[in-house]
Amino acid sequence: MEISQLGEFGLIDRLTKDLPTVNSSTIRSVGDDCAVLRNHDTDILVTTDLLLEGVHFDLTYVPLKHLGYKSAVVNFSDVYAMNGTPRQITVSLGISSRFTVEHIEELYSGIRLACNIYGVDLVGGDTTSSRQGLVISITCIGEAEASKVVTRSGARDTDLICVSGDLGAAYMGLQLLEREKIASAGQKDFRPDFGGKEYIVERQLKPEARKDIVAQLAKDGIVPTAMMDISDGLSSDLLHIAHDSNVGCRVYEDRIPIDYQTAVMAEELGMNVIMAALNGGEDYELLFTVPLHCHEKVKDMPGVKVIGHITKPELGCALVTPDGAEIPLRAQGWNPLAATSASDKG
Amino acid sequence: MEISQLGEFGLIDRLTKDLPTVNSSTIRSVGDDCAVLRNHDTDILVTTDLLLEGVHFDLTYVPLKHLGYKSAVVNFSDVYAMNGTPRQITVSLGISSRFTVEHIEELYSGIRLACNIYGVDLVGGDTTSSRQGLVISITCIGEAEASKVVTRSGARDTDLICVSGDLGAAYMGLQLLEREKIASAGQKDFRPDFGGKEYIVERQLKPEARKDIVAQLAKDGIVPTAMMDISDGLSSDLLHIAHDSNVGCRVYEDRIPIDYQTAVMAEELGMNVIMAALNGGEDYELLFTVPLHCHEKVKDMPGVKVIGHITKPELGCALVTPDGAEIPLRAQGWNPLAATSASDKG
Repeated sequence: MEISQLGEFGLIDRLTKDLPTVNSSTIRSVGDDCAVLRNHDTDILVTTDLLLEGVHFDLTYVPLKHLGYKSAVVNFSDVYAMNGTPRQITVSLGISSRFTVEHIEELYSGIRLACNIYGVDLVGGDTTSSRQGLVISITCIGEAEASKVVTRSGARDTDLICVSGDLGAAYMGLQLLEREKIASAGQKDFRPDFGGKEYIVERQLKPEARKDIVAQLAKDGIVPTAMMDISDGLSSDLLHIAHDSNVGCRVYEDRIPIDYQTAVMAEELGMNVIMAALNGGEDYELLFTVPLHCHEKVKDMPGVKVIGHITKPELGCALVTPDGAEIPLRAQGWNPLAATSASDKG
Repeated sequence: MEISQLGEFGLIDRLTKDLPTVNSSTIRSVGDDCAVLRNHDTDILVTTDLLLEGVHFDLTYVPLKHLGYKSAVVNFSDVYAMNGTPRQITVSLGISSRFTVEHIEELYSGIRLACNIYGVDLVGGDTTSSRQGLVISITCIGEAEASKVVTRSGARDTDLICVSGDLGAAYMGLQLLEREKIASAGQKDFRPDFGGKEYIVERQLKPEARKDIVAQLAKDGIVPTAMMDISDGLSSDLLHIAHDSNVGCRVYEDRIPIDYQTAVMAEELGMNVIMAALNGGEDYELLFTVPLHCHEKVKDMPGVKVIGHITKPELGCALVTPDGAEIPLRAQGWNPLAATSASDKG
């Protein structure tokens, strides 16, 4: 059977079904942003990402320092998405012969910068040659109070659905970078035109993990009922929460936060900006649900927007348009097992 | 600067020098078999390995199930080498389009078998497409009593140097597999000839981690002063212990344990079997040092052999031949950053 028939999640389900665990420290296994290992009253969170040149990144327009930074930050984001704090990472690199020591130092400078900013220790890894291209595998270990870990499965009917920041910007940044790459083909001294679009380019090349939102929630005494980071796209990720929590949801189109530059870029390219926000992915914003009684607290929280609410499962998951029509949410985010280049995304 | 000028350890040294750590849980960072993270009186051990098709394995003669088994076991071995117990692994795969679902299930069946045998839980990972070949990145998390963790840096003058099992077999198994691959080229229905050499083929394709030795040491109340697993070759790995412990050593050629099949294969190929044992690597045996007063206990321990002793640093590291000559030990083990195929090994 072709792997593309199953897709990433189908394949993982098939490979990991009936996977027994035997260690008492294994609290939560495959299927969330992180695995959860218990040690006394502290939970150890573990997450890992594999990034391959030509699939996940294109060095034509991604500077190595940015790539290092982003590779680390996307792992931190998974730990924050469990309401934890990232503490350590390991970095494994496969390096083909076209890379020099200086190239790898550049990549590492980005990883180290991310570690410095987020207070994470780089504690190990593996370094080897690669026959083709750059391979980056990062594992992040985090900590959380056992009682405060937030999974994808706790959303309940009437809970509010919240997102941090704005959506679709990283995806539109990717479209812009791809357009400039095509425009530059064969031209010497080509200067890409990012004027007025710096924000969406930055969102693609140098995303941040929402440590600030996790801190704000803690400060306000809010433990979300479910949370994850938006890496595959709002639709796909919200469907994960709905599935794992056995609930439905309604998301209001006019509540979805979209930056001005994202909208302008979509307009320029003749794309539907709502589709970009729903399915673009790589936002690394936090998507979380809170009980209805937290409404007063979250509605004024800086950088957080209430975009909808959880329903009973039989109502399914839908986007509500401004005229009240309901469109079923579909997982149209990135399928990493169908992708053959970063530009296939979406 | 070309990366091959520095080699793996040179590159890692350069990338990780002056790497500050900020989290109190980070006890030991880059530079041993595992990183060590402390949580109350338990140490969390973390190790990771990146395996790339065409560099670390050749699917012409490595069955996918064996590959899965070995990929997991080599990580368990790193945890045992710190005197710990492996508890969880994450498995990330990059899969090119020539692999089917059944292929990946085969690979996973080997990983699951290893997990079952060693009592380890598979708790997560990442699965994505790859443009060329198979990419396997495994991270293993283990546990150890904080007071019982054994690093590479504790060897002291007069300590005894011990190894488990026998050395060079995996390397000679690789040579045999490579020979049969060449012999089979272009031939249909070729049957490789492994008669009488099953042990060395098994050592290459399906190595085991020495859980039994760690258990035996614990049972006898011995905490080694230094320990690591032999992955790069006895010479290279012993030099790591000597360097990190700031000591010298003497290893006696006629004490190095070599299996009969290893010797026969070396003879057949006109190779020096001692060189294979010193530099072959992939043995995944334990190399450890114990105080001299443990001599009575280790000399009769099944599967363990005393091969030499630690000296003052100024005496350097040398192999002592049967006629008493001293040959300086050199790290001639595998350089993964110079390798372009598995057959380059050694």
